[in-house]
Amino acid sequence: MFDLGQAKAGLAARDTRAIAKTLRAVDDREPWIAALFSDLHGKLAEHRQKAHVIGITGSPGAGKSTVVDALIAHYRALGQRVGVIAVDPTSPFTGGAILGDRIRMRGHSLDDGVFIRSLATRGALGGLSKSASDSVNVMLAAGFDVVLLETVGVGQDEVDVFKVAQSVVVVLTPGMGDDIQAIKAGILEIADVYLVNKADREGAHKVVSDLKSMLTLMPHPDEQQLPPVIEAVATEKKGIDTLAAALAQHLAYLRGAEAGKKREERRLIAAFLQLFRNEAVWQVEQRVGGGLDAASLRVARGEDPYRVTAEMLATLFR
Amino acid sequence: MFDLGQAKAGLAARDTRAIAKTLRAVDDREPWIAALFSDLHGKLAEHRQKAHVIGITGSPGAGKSTVVDALIAHYRALGQRVGVIAVDPTSPFTGGAILGDRIRMRGHSLDDGVFIRSLATRGALGGLSKSASDSVNVMLAAGFDVVLLETVGVGQDEVDVFKVAQSVVVVLTPGMGDDIQAIKAGILEIADVYLVNKADREGAHKVVSDLKSMLTLMPHPDEQQLPPVIEAVATEKKGIDTLAAALAQHLAYLRGAEAGKKREERRLIAAFLQLFRNEAVWQVEQRVGGGLDAASLRVARGEDPYRVTAEMLATLFR
Repeated sequence: MFDLGQAKAGLAARDTRAIAKTLRAVDDREPWIAALFSDLHGKLAEHRQKAHVIGITGSPGAGKSTVVDALIAHYRALGQRVGVIAVDPTSPFTGGAILGDRIRMRGHSLDDGVFIRSLATRGALGGLSKSASDSVNVMLAAGFDVVLLETVGVGQDEVDVFKVAQSVVVVLTPGMGDDIQAIKAGILEIADVYLVNKADREGAHKVVSDLKSMLTLMPHPDEQQLPPVIEAVATEKKGIDTLAAALAQHLAYLRGAEAGKKREERRLIAAFLQLFRNEAVWQVEQRVGGGLDAASLRVARGEDPYRVTAEMLATLFR
Repeated sequence: MFDLGQAKAGLAARDTRAIAKTLRAVDDREPWIAALFSDLHGKLAEHRQKAHVIGITGSPGAGKSTVVDALIAHYRALGQRVGVIAVDPTSPFTGGAILGDRIRMRGHSLDDGVFIRSLATRGALGGLSKSASDSVNVMLAAGFDVVLLETVGVGQDEVDVFKVAQSVVVVLTPGMGDDIQAIKAGILEIADVYLVNKADREGAHKVVSDLKSMLTLMPHPDEQQLPPVIEAVATEKKGIDTLAAALAQHLAYLRGAEAGKKREERRLIAAFLQLFRNEAVWQVEQRVGGGLDAASLRVARGEDPYRVTAEMLATLFR
């Protein structure tokens, strides 16, 4: 049995198998995981001071995985250890990651300075947050210098990535229609850096200029630091150095300026609230136990779900 | 003050202002909302038997809003009353819908047989489910014949839409690259009908044939009923009649076959579990009250979020 003690020792030793086993324990919600992070709290705060957690998000087809790939190569060339967490959409039926191991095969699999992990977003507990946040903590505890968190899609995932990552890159591409600009408005506000990928395609300059004019109109919480817009062709590694430089600058900003520190506090609070809610649901479900199955059957037979919910919750609280 | 009694009377009378006010009360989590749905439980089950709740999902830029628009026109021509709920990505900063009223302006605003509502997905409580599910109930209670639920993005939202809708349409388009097929695998499994929109574009036939061959490979929970793949040009209303016919057929299947009834039970249970979890978090937050703010400050100052969470939850349960 892999346990708390082995996880702590293994992470401290940066042992690849221990990292993998701890990540699996996070997924399986082993009861000792909370104790692990409590024990490591001081160390995690230290690691977080030294490391950089970067979220990469944007629409399907924008080339996020290629950007991640190019960033891995960039940071490895500088001798930094890189952890990657790729979050896939869930199937409600299988609960499994379908992209799965595809990404692992892209050339870094023999490099032990790189650790790549695919997560399924489990439907029940609210998007990626719970296991992504804990998985990032595992990577930090294992001393990775850079943690890349790739999320698919638009919507909840992107909002959550803001709570986990220190810097968020939103990847856009030319030629995805006008509508996309409007639809993406929700995620535009969480970006620290915009990357217009596939910038050799027609329409790239228009996306860049549209984006820049949108940014001047949009209230950004840290107005001192208007997010840069970078052009890239990730398949040819063009623009990746510029992206990394912008990310380094954003990290320096977070650590230096008063507004940066405030933003880091907001992030800590948002992550805590997410943790609190997930734990609350988890504890409720543990206490209700098999009662939830019985209640589900009653609802399936036509009973009022609101009443059943109220009845069950009434027995739980002090 | 708009209250439970007024909501019940107003919904029964199909009064537009009462519908709007009740939807706002759902958003604001007015305490009487659960009582409203409990009171209406029998009626809701009846309405659900007569109505059709249809989810429309797919990537940004696929033309979902245009499909919704064309479906509204289709059902209105048949004399049916149509409610629409459009779910937008949230900004974590404003908590507001950015698409907002854009969709309302598309020509149905003077028709009182159509009610269109934009919802923001509030970050905290897990995607669209809570308010979307309750908003659908409001629409059902107000006697709409068809309720269209449009969601943006890929990921959590799509999984959740399965819990709320009776039939799910996944909208695809040609020319979005190969990657898209793999990435979308997660949502492919929740589809009851596939719509290849913009079918006049190059590559449409390839998307259709790729999709069909994928479907034969993929385990589908209701194997008797392999989901149809329909081509459409929604901007010209081409293919919309075929789509509506496929949806009607799916509804008949749900109501007739044993597998359809089982699926409806699964949907009821999934919706109940979501309701239960959301209510659990809500009640926990009500009980913790201002304590959560104080705890957030402690975490922002560097305290261990896992320990703070455990401390707070320990005081709550019996």
